[in-house]
Amino acid sequence: MDKNILLQLEKIAGKDGVLSTPEDLIVYSYDGTFAEHRPDAVVLPRTTEQVSQIVALAARERIPVVTRGMGSGLAAASVPLSGGIALTMTRMNHILEIDKANATAHVEAGVVTAELQIAVEKHGLFYPPDPSSNRHSTLGGNIACNAGGPRCLKYGVTGDYVLGLNVVLADGRVLHTGSKCIKDVVGYDLTALFTGSEGTLGVITEALLRLIARPRYARTALVEFVSLDNACRTVNAILLAGILPAALELMDETAISCIEEAMHLGLPLDVEAILLVETDGSDEAAVLREIEATAGICHDCSARHIKIAKDEAERGSLWEARRSVAPALARKAPNKLGEDITVPRSAIPEAVHRLKAISAKYGLPIVIFGHAGDGNLHPNILFDRRDPQQWAKVEKMVGEVFGTSLELGGTLSGEHGVGALKRPYMEQALGPLSIEIQRRIKQALDPLNIFNPGKVIPEKVSP
Amino acid sequence: MDKNILLQLEKIAGKDGVLSTPEDLIVYSYDGTFAEHRPDAVVLPRTTEQVSQIVALAARERIPVVTRGMGSGLAAASVPLSGGIALTMTRMNHILEIDKANATAHVEAGVVTAELQIAVEKHGLFYPPDPSSNRHSTLGGNIACNAGGPRCLKYGVTGDYVLGLNVVLADGRVLHTGSKCIKDVVGYDLTALFTGSEGTLGVITEALLRLIARPRYARTALVEFVSLDNACRTVNAILLAGILPAALELMDETAISCIEEAMHLGLPLDVEAILLVETDGSDEAAVLREIEATAGICHDCSARHIKIAKDEAERGSLWEARRSVAPALARKAPNKLGEDITVPRSAIPEAVHRLKAISAKYGLPIVIFGHAGDGNLHPNILFDRRDPQQWAKVEKMVGEVFGTSLELGGTLSGEHGVGALKRPYMEQALGPLSIEIQRRIKQALDPLNIFNPGKVIPEKVSP
Repeated sequence: MDKNILLQLEKIAGKDGVLSTPEDLIVYSYDGTFAEHRPDAVVLPRTTEQVSQIVALAARERIPVVTRGMGSGLAAASVPLSGGIALTMTRMNHILEIDKANATAHVEAGVVTAELQIAVEKHGLFYPPDPSSNRHSTLGGNIACNAGGPRCLKYGVTGDYVLGLNVVLADGRVLHTGSKCIKDVVGYDLTALFTGSEGTLGVITEALLRLIARPRYARTALVEFVSLDNACRTVNAILLAGILPAALELMDETAISCIEEAMHLGLPLDVEAILLVETDGSDEAAVLREIEATAGICHDCSARHIKIAKDEAERGSLWEARRSVAPALARKAPNKLGEDITVPRSAIPEAVHRLKAISAKYGLPIVIFGHAGDGNLHPNILFDRRDPQQWAKVEKMVGEVFGTSLELGGTLSGEHGVGALKRPYMEQALGPLSIEIQRRIKQALDPLNIFNPGKVIPEKVSP
Repeated sequence: MDKNILLQLEKIAGKDGVLSTPEDLIVYSYDGTFAEHRPDAVVLPRTTEQVSQIVALAARERIPVVTRGMGSGLAAASVPLSGGIALTMTRMNHILEIDKANATAHVEAGVVTAELQIAVEKHGLFYPPDPSSNRHSTLGGNIACNAGGPRCLKYGVTGDYVLGLNVVLADGRVLHTGSKCIKDVVGYDLTALFTGSEGTLGVITEALLRLIARPRYARTALVEFVSLDNACRTVNAILLAGILPAALELMDETAISCIEEAMHLGLPLDVEAILLVETDGSDEAAVLREIEATAGICHDCSARHIKIAKDEAERGSLWEARRSVAPALARKAPNKLGEDITVPRSAIPEAVHRLKAISAKYGLPIVIFGHAGDGNLHPNILFDRRDPQQWAKVEKMVGEVFGTSLELGGTLSGEHGVGALKRPYMEQALGPLSIEIQRRIKQALDPLNIFNPGKVIPEKVSP
């Protein structure tokens, strides 16, 4: 990057706030995917005002601004594929206020999600969205991707908890949206527009989040199924019975064996699937009755064994198992490509059936786990990237996985977002008119295409 | 309207689908406010395709299109202040699908909200948003205004139940958004953008709605307070205790006396306020324990009397009382002007105190009732519009009511929307940058300003 611009950036963010050595640039060239590209500079602002000045400078100089939190994204949204500034929000990591009376939290974008959760739980409050990355991903990143997690079945996704935002716009001006009011219908819902826009419309620097009362009791059950198909059907049977569990997670046999090899938790290795079900609430007896009712349905749906955790320690180890699925897959193959399709919940059995057929067709394992209760599955293709034949297969398989989801009335992503990786499938998923409207909104808010170029919205193809 | 255009409209919507006699035009020149203006024609389409052709014609001829449902709006959003076509959606009133397995409903925009609610409850499902107008207002109107209601405290507002939309855009093309998936983070959230846009960005013709399991049990309590201030403080005490009632409604003494005069329910006439509290859920004992815990808190907050409804009939009459507040006010004065401010819930006591002070200052009653649990108050100014001095006072009072809300960190509207009536206060509420961004979005989606001109977004004032 031009020395003069680096000096100006240092003037704004401080000398320690700008990184530009090759080794620094490499560190900020990745996220949680295979994608990589070096930024021209890394800038670590400490205030909204600094972000405003950085963006204004970038706009004047036509430098791309790619905002990132902890780089845990799974769609390459924060990989600076066109270079430019990797605007890294990790130093804006202060919880500015927890307002107990109004049940709100005002945070900077770089606060790690689990840190907010721990802080508010001390006040008897609860921030439900729980992406599996919550111990390292940031709230700003969660909002930019509208992240989900197991608890979102009952409690809703990140966007359902965003009351307001401070957003630096493409010319450096700072927009405030929303308020502490949980009902607010004054003008267009700009908060919702920026939520999930993956850094393409503005830089989220602060957020006002809605909290709820912490559920005081939870009961968790691990349910074994000899048949994966029966496990999938059980998901629908539970929901059709009017039970809304706090979580309803599916793991198939490959997922189970990877976890067991890694963690020795005594998981069964002779079943095709496990469901992890949790009920929670503020009434201890009702929470217990609900998990027992759930267990009854599982029994009727041919579950082989149902184990309800006796205490917090047992409950903790069941969740530890669920959370370790993704890392544990590394034991089976050098590489994995994890997808994030969501299908209408009635289509889960058919979706799983077709995913297994894709796996059989190409001879590469597809592990299936995810938030089955809301139809959000994470099919993970296991392979060895050093083998070009396998890589070629994987690319075809990804296309077929997306095709399957769309055919079943599903979507490309339930919680990871589009980023760069799903962009080629956007038009197939949403149709050309939706893309045109989204492009117009992008153009209206970021006419110079400063923010995260090459992400989310496909380029206009000349006719 | 030009004869030739009327003929073209008749060709699209049928002869019985176009009204243009003076008496017809008068009928469609009102909503639930004082505003009135005749359209040049009323068109009642039966299909999305007809709407598409009507809008395409209107765009070619530069005719304003003002979409309306049942005309029950409270911000003049559907009053055709610039004339044009009153595009009336009441003939598109079919429930197209109730998908029990996925807990979704696919409806046309003109379906009356309560009709959907009754239909889905037969399947054990539940559509929570319950504006007081739900027995006559339409789902399309509810979505266009992002309507709320008593149950929204616990269950969220209309927008929280909109999964997808069919929207006719400003050039007549039909955009589909969303899917039956409850998690979908693919591209910008266009569904949220159209929700609450009050007919200024497109015509909502169909919606895909999320349903939940019907809560099987409910308990309702009527709580009397000698002091209005104590009633307000009790709202916060209940929520701070971690209880989330299905409804938490406030009525002040004027509201109570109006209802009692109209309905003879035996409501107390010697208290300053009543709270109506409801708990609900799928566990009968837990629902009872929760209403009892609520009653205990009310007792600790100096409630004079707490009556828990013994049966459905008693519960029904309590709700009948609440629902009749607005019409019953007609007994006190020839006219009322009802506002819809929302304040952070901790500010409710102060807001009520200041509203009473405004009332005293101008010598006109302000009745206070509303969804206290989410800070959404409906201060109603009672007056006689034939008296120009009173009308002049009312206009000043409205400004002070909004000023109070904004000073306390609140908003202009919790559920009625902006329409024409709150448009002059938009910039004060949101700031010029927010207005500029909203104007750019309007311009991007409706460059000819065909849809509902003069609503929501203030005109650009030349500098």
